[in-house]
Amino acid sequence: MNAPAPALPAERDADVLVIGAGPAGLHAAFYAAWRGLNVTVLDARHEPGGQLTALYPDRRVYDVPGLPATPAADVIAALVRQLDGLPVRLRPGTLARTLEPDGDGWRVGTTGADGPRTFRTGAVILAAGLGALLPREARVPGTHPDVRTDVPDPARLAGRRVLIVGGVPQATRAALELAQAGAQVTLTHRRAGFRGSPAELDALSEAGRSGQLTVLAPAVLLNVTPTGAALTVDGQPRDVPADTVLILNGYLPDLNPLQSWPLQWQGEYVPDGPDGRTALPGVFVVGDLAASGQDFKLISVGLAQAAVAANHAAHHVRPELRVRPGHSSEKRLS
Amino acid sequence: MNAPAPALPAERDADVLVIGAGPAGLHAAFYAAWRGLNVTVLDARHEPGGQLTALYPDRRVYDVPGLPATPAADVIAALVRQLDGLPVRLRPGTLARTLEPDGDGWRVGTTGADGPRTFRTGAVILAAGLGALLPREARVPGTHPDVRTDVPDPARLAGRRVLIVGGVPQATRAALELAQAGAQVTLTHRRAGFRGSPAELDALSEAGRSGQLTVLAPAVLLNVTPTGAALTVDGQPRDVPADTVLILNGYLPDLNPLQSWPLQWQGEYVPDGPDGRTALPGVFVVGDLAASGQDFKLISVGLAQAAVAANHAAHHVRPELRVRPGHSSEKRLS
Repeated sequence: MNAPAPALPAERDADVLVIGAGPAGLHAAFYAAWRGLNVTVLDARHEPGGQLTALYPDRRVYDVPGLPATPAADVIAALVRQLDGLPVRLRPGTLARTLEPDGDGWRVGTTGADGPRTFRTGAVILAAGLGALLPREARVPGTHPDVRTDVPDPARLAGRRVLIVGGVPQATRAALELAQAGAQVTLTHRRAGFRGSPAELDALSEAGRSGQLTVLAPAVLLNVTPTGAALTVDGQPRDVPADTVLILNGYLPDLNPLQSWPLQWQGEYVPDGPDGRTALPGVFVVGDLAASGQDFKLISVGLAQAAVAANHAAHHVRPELRVRPGHSSEKRLS
Repeated sequence: MNAPAPALPAERDADVLVIGAGPAGLHAAFYAAWRGLNVTVLDARHEPGGQLTALYPDRRVYDVPGLPATPAADVIAALVRQLDGLPVRLRPGTLARTLEPDGDGWRVGTTGADGPRTFRTGAVILAAGLGALLPREARVPGTHPDVRTDVPDPARLAGRRVLIVGGVPQATRAALELAQAGAQVTLTHRRAGFRGSPAELDALSEAGRSGQLTVLAPAVLLNVTPTGAALTVDGQPRDVPADTVLILNGYLPDLNPLQSWPLQWQGEYVPDGPDGRTALPGVFVVGDLAASGQDFKLISVGLAQAAVAANHAAHHVRPELRVRPGHSSEKRLS
């Protein structure tokens, strides 16, 4: 175990394709790679972490074993660090759409920043949680040439006037990153408070004080205009000129493309056998998406399911590998 | 959740009694206490950690999620740190022997350093792994008034001549601790190498060089004598005077007292239902002792079993608590 990964069969992009880079997906990737398999992890978002980085990166998680009172973003950072040196490729911004048999493996079609793609793989581990976390739609009256619900590459916005609307951690982070990259940032939210890690909130106050960016909150966004947006701040109307308007209202999970896959769905869950097997050979399910855990969702449970399924996936793809991984410490009784 | 623990019913010593302070037992204790229950954890050894601290504290564990390449002793330290501020009492050096019904709870009889005791509890979580890890017997010819297989309180050996025989991590640590506490320590082993963390092995070399302790290895222990021991070092006989002789050969697991409990044992395993339930109401089993994991032992699996069983135990003891803990981050979708 933990041997250098043997070369992939030429026709495959991965031995194991993990769909979803939340905690369960990251740990499944770790274990499959640690068994010597080549792993690719897809995620619809631009960063790993699933719900932890999308919905509550600023909150502490108390119940991940061995990580007491740890900010959710740091839980993810630790799981990502565990992939160091292993043959795991993360493919952010990639949405899984189709599943087709491919010899004794599978072919997964995706869309994303790089356009449509196909991944050929020996096994699939579904770790898609509640579904792909897609940005909430912006419903803002008026017209403006560049209204977005995602955060573009900061370098592309250097020197431009950017209005960011939203109180979620992503809005705070985007404001800091874009200001840092040289954009002229105005951050606004309908409430006075913003969300973020203590360090981010400190940085936001400091950037506001020093004039590195402008914070208008509480404020109401009335509409966008061809040259910016109209707000109400303290009851007074105010026009904010902007080349780009980012409406960041968090994420909504979408199971849509996956739910057409023939997995005998039970509502929003995929039935799982004892080792995470689904109805399809070589397709496994772990974490919040697995039906067995539907009334008891804990990160630790998803992580354990991931470890078990990854070992079974390893054996499925390379039958010469035993299912049982042995002890990672190679301990001897002494 | 995470509210101050309400007072125990007067007749009980604990809401939940966890047997075994390995990873699964420690995490079960965390979760039950985090749900607001009073928890006591028994372990036969003098320190928590189970196999990780008894058998391979010096080795790295690679596959605990979020703790990449972490020395086994540090994995345990992290799980112990997670108990900070929670109503958990650790009772090291306490061996569970008997189990009897006690109203709607249980009564567990123990032996240990403090003599025989009885713990009255609402629920029991068995996390005893391979069994109590008891010191291997010393089989040394000759007689000496103070030959031991455990390490006494270092303060009691200050100023005394102590011969430590063994190459396990426990021997290295004992040599350092006793020398530090003012004992005149000789450490010997049949092989040249000792085991310990890199820091411990460095400290051992340094202590040997500076004369703070004496290392004789490789050396053969021939027999003990009323005033010390006879060794062969480099083929030459050598008498080592000693007031105390510690024979530290590691640990052997012993399921003996538990195996008389009516748990429908399958060999060395206790059958477990989906939530870690055993045949006895209010008695749960998690980790390596649970039959469901008998061909797939991973720390992460034991940790998840512990979390699930602890939540069910909480509900068993306090039916007004829901089984489902909710999200520890109290996250809102935003």
